[in-house]
Amino acid sequence: MREFVLYSRSGRTDGRFDSLHGAGRLDVVYQCALMALHRSHALRQDVVFRALLNGPPDPPKELIIEGAKLRDAPMDERGWEGLLRGVLSGRPHPGIELRRGSLQALTRERDDVFVLEKGGEDIRTVELGQDPMFVIGDQVGLPKKEEEFILRRGRKVSLGGKEYLAAQCVCIINYVLDLREAQC
Amino acid sequence: MREFVLYSRSGRTDGRFDSLHGAGRLDVVYQCALMALHRSHALRQDVVFRALLNGPPDPPKELIIEGAKLRDAPMDERGWEGLLRGVLSGRPHPGIELRRGSLQALTRERDDVFVLEKGGEDIRTVELGQDPMFVIGDQVGLPKKEEEFILRRGRKVSLGGKEYLAAQCVCIINYVLDLREAQC
Repeated sequence: MREFVLYSRSGRTDGRFDSLHGAGRLDVVYQCALMALHRSHALRQDVVFRALLNGPPDPPKELIIEGAKLRDAPMDERGWEGLLRGVLSGRPHPGIELRRGSLQALTRERDDVFVLEKGGEDIRTVELGQDPMFVIGDQVGLPKKEEEFILRRGRKVSLGGKEYLAAQCVCIINYVLDLREAQC
Repeated sequence: MREFVLYSRSGRTDGRFDSLHGAGRLDVVYQCALMALHRSHALRQDVVFRALLNGPPDPPKELIIEGAKLRDAPMDERGWEGLLRGVLSGRPHPGIELRRGSLQALTRERDDVFVLEKGGEDIRTVELGQDPMFVIGDQVGLPKKEEEFILRRGRKVSLGGKEYLAAQCVCIINYVLDLREAQC
């Protein structure tokens, strides 16, 4: 399994919004979900994507999307806007769950949690284990306190010298893991 | 320079549409532009992104977006929807050009054109030259005739055994080229 966790500082926690961008940058959640869960004409069965939403009116919430259970997943932002508005309003959707959640609760018991940082070990060579969890900051980045908590047990990994959008990080990690699997 | 060319079979060639998805999958153009041109808090100055639009009512059109000249570039699909609707209606925008164009005209004189294919040479090791151009099919793929034309002079490169969304291909290629530049 591969898990991606997007920490969204401002992502809205109910369904009352006009656009994903205006809903505390839920468009970033859409972009990351697309990169995490979709491949060409297929959904990744081995991916769980989580978004921790810390925006108004009822934070924190954890949105969980499982590739193996997801049905009727759109590809475009408008489609996801409708989907997320429904889920955040309490409407069920196959493969998507919404619950109370925090980054510390998610990562507390795990040894295989990785945070992206320029100065970390190269992701192409670091030991990742069987079921790695990658924690990714939104457009602002991870809060220092959260990062410090994770790094008590977790590790820093690097995608190289460049800094990427959250969705690009997710895409690159999937690619690197695909190559590793192919080599095995 | 890096050039990405998205061949869009059905992308609409005027500004009369309700959504990018409904406009012959112009949402794929948005996704690829985001992955090609944006980095974290920056635009890539060394990227030119082209989309060849072959949908109604006036194909073929070539949309050209230059990272070095682009201004006021949104990150979300809604923002790009407004931008593309304007440009396809004839409104100018800094860094974006719209003209008559075809894949064959674009690639005819070049030796450094690459087409993605599973069976191609691994992109991590193939010689790419200084200013490679990558041609990428949309959700349906490149038409056979166009691919054969390009491959008279161009070459096949592979991202590995998995098949990716067009936007994911763009993102992975940027990552691979970033790593190469860092090694130089």
